[in-house]
Amino acid sequence: MRVALGLEYDGRAFAGWQTQPHGNTVQDKLNAALSIIAGEPITTIAAGRTDAGVHAAMQVVHFETRAQRPLNAWVRGVNAHLPPEVAVVWSREVDEVFHARFSAFSRSYSYFLLSHPVRPSLTAGKVGWYYGALDVEAMREAALRLIGRHDFSSFRAAECQAKTPVKDLQVLDISASDGLIRFDFKADAFLHHMVRNIVGALVYVGKGSLDADGMSALLQAADRTKAPPTFMPDGLYLTGVGYPEHFCLPSVPDPARLALWR
Amino acid sequence: MRVALGLEYDGRAFAGWQTQPHGNTVQDKLNAALSIIAGEPITTIAAGRTDAGVHAAMQVVHFETRAQRPLNAWVRGVNAHLPPEVAVVWSREVDEVFHARFSAFSRSYSYFLLSHPVRPSLTAGKVGWYYGALDVEAMREAALRLIGRHDFSSFRAAECQAKTPVKDLQVLDISASDGLIRFDFKADAFLHHMVRNIVGALVYVGKGSLDADGMSALLQAADRTKAPPTFMPDGLYLTGVGYPEHFCLPSVPDPARLALWR
Repeated sequence: MRVALGLEYDGRAFAGWQTQPHGNTVQDKLNAALSIIAGEPITTIAAGRTDAGVHAAMQVVHFETRAQRPLNAWVRGVNAHLPPEVAVVWSREVDEVFHARFSAFSRSYSYFLLSHPVRPSLTAGKVGWYYGALDVEAMREAALRLIGRHDFSSFRAAECQAKTPVKDLQVLDISASDGLIRFDFKADAFLHHMVRNIVGALVYVGKGSLDADGMSALLQAADRTKAPPTFMPDGLYLTGVGYPEHFCLPSVPDPARLALWR
Repeated sequence: MRVALGLEYDGRAFAGWQTQPHGNTVQDKLNAALSIIAGEPITTIAAGRTDAGVHAAMQVVHFETRAQRPLNAWVRGVNAHLPPEVAVVWSREVDEVFHARFSAFSRSYSYFLLSHPVRPSLTAGKVGWYYGALDVEAMREAALRLIGRHDFSSFRAAECQAKTPVKDLQVLDISASDGLIRFDFKADAFLHHMVRNIVGALVYVGKGSLDADGMSALLQAADRTKAPPTFMPDGLYLTGVGYPEHFCLPSVPDPARLALWR
């Protein structure tokens, strides 16, 4: 039987998604908890391999098992064996052709940035931070230059294992209220550090060190060494994964689980 | 010179406000950082002594010093010596009659409660949790019975050191959206555990184990042993302290520092 899970986590508690020898990753914790419930070793495959410090409001994974369990056991049973900072939110039985990574046709990420003279503390690790004011209109104009199918090599980490640097960036919306700036991204797939590298470049635009034409030139250069530094992981959330409708999986997180202070 | 500070913290990182021998409290960390900047030992007095796990969006403290420093040193300088989960947000010089605790005529607290089958993980420690559905209308009706000047002994912790159990509860608003329930409290002062004990009783109302008349009877009984258990600290935030206007202190937190996911 193949099972898909929707997963939520606070990335600060883990050394990223992907399994590591020290075992303090989301995948290690999840595999261990699933293996207890299944009574056999379980390994999982995720839609997006988030880095250390990056959060998930909706990560999707799948696994194979011979164990017959009520679907709810993959939620409540597994959650009883997971650390407080990670939880399975839903489970679905899926057919054998479903693959959490290869069936996904889109990923959505959001980045939250506090623009304030004082660093965050109540939301430490949950929002990025820039101490000065940022020109949101200028950032929006520069962001438009990135929309579409492009070679994103200028925003690609050296360690990136993607086959191609060409990605289709469908959404890059910027909204701001009360000094909290929100960046919403959607693409077929993302290169390693792509969102954080684009946010880093947009912050340069916001503070006046780069303009929209400069952003276009940066994209054209296809050269990471020309681009501003990677922004901190703190404010980055995986917020959704798009699959063909016939798999009948939830496409967005439950808003109750995100909402605070509104 | 007497200085007032506005403080923000993630209560999970500390064993409450009040100094303890082990030193892992907000007051200990703040006194140590202030003493470095002042070059002399500094002790602070707070408007409200929050418990372990309780957060502050706006705590107010004051201290005395002979050190002459630019006001900003009490913000940026001190923050450089504080752990990531606590920050000074503003500083003001105040006259000698100001006292963070005794000059305050009101305190405001908010409690956030996730009503969802799955425990929080992305917001672990930042919201309370109840797995079932809650009748918000019934909770609102019962909450009205608590408004006003009453003996709140039924909601008072055994260890409470307040001189009197009589407090004036001016506000108890309940709002709900998407399964996140928010309780806003304002009173002249609060007894130890009073907010968490009232939230505990309101959850009993929400799940149908108590009604508004039962809440009135509970209040009248003035007996802690008759009331439902104390609710978890996770969702509780000190959100403001009221002082006479002539002290010219900010009365509410900067919304940018709270906002997320809206």
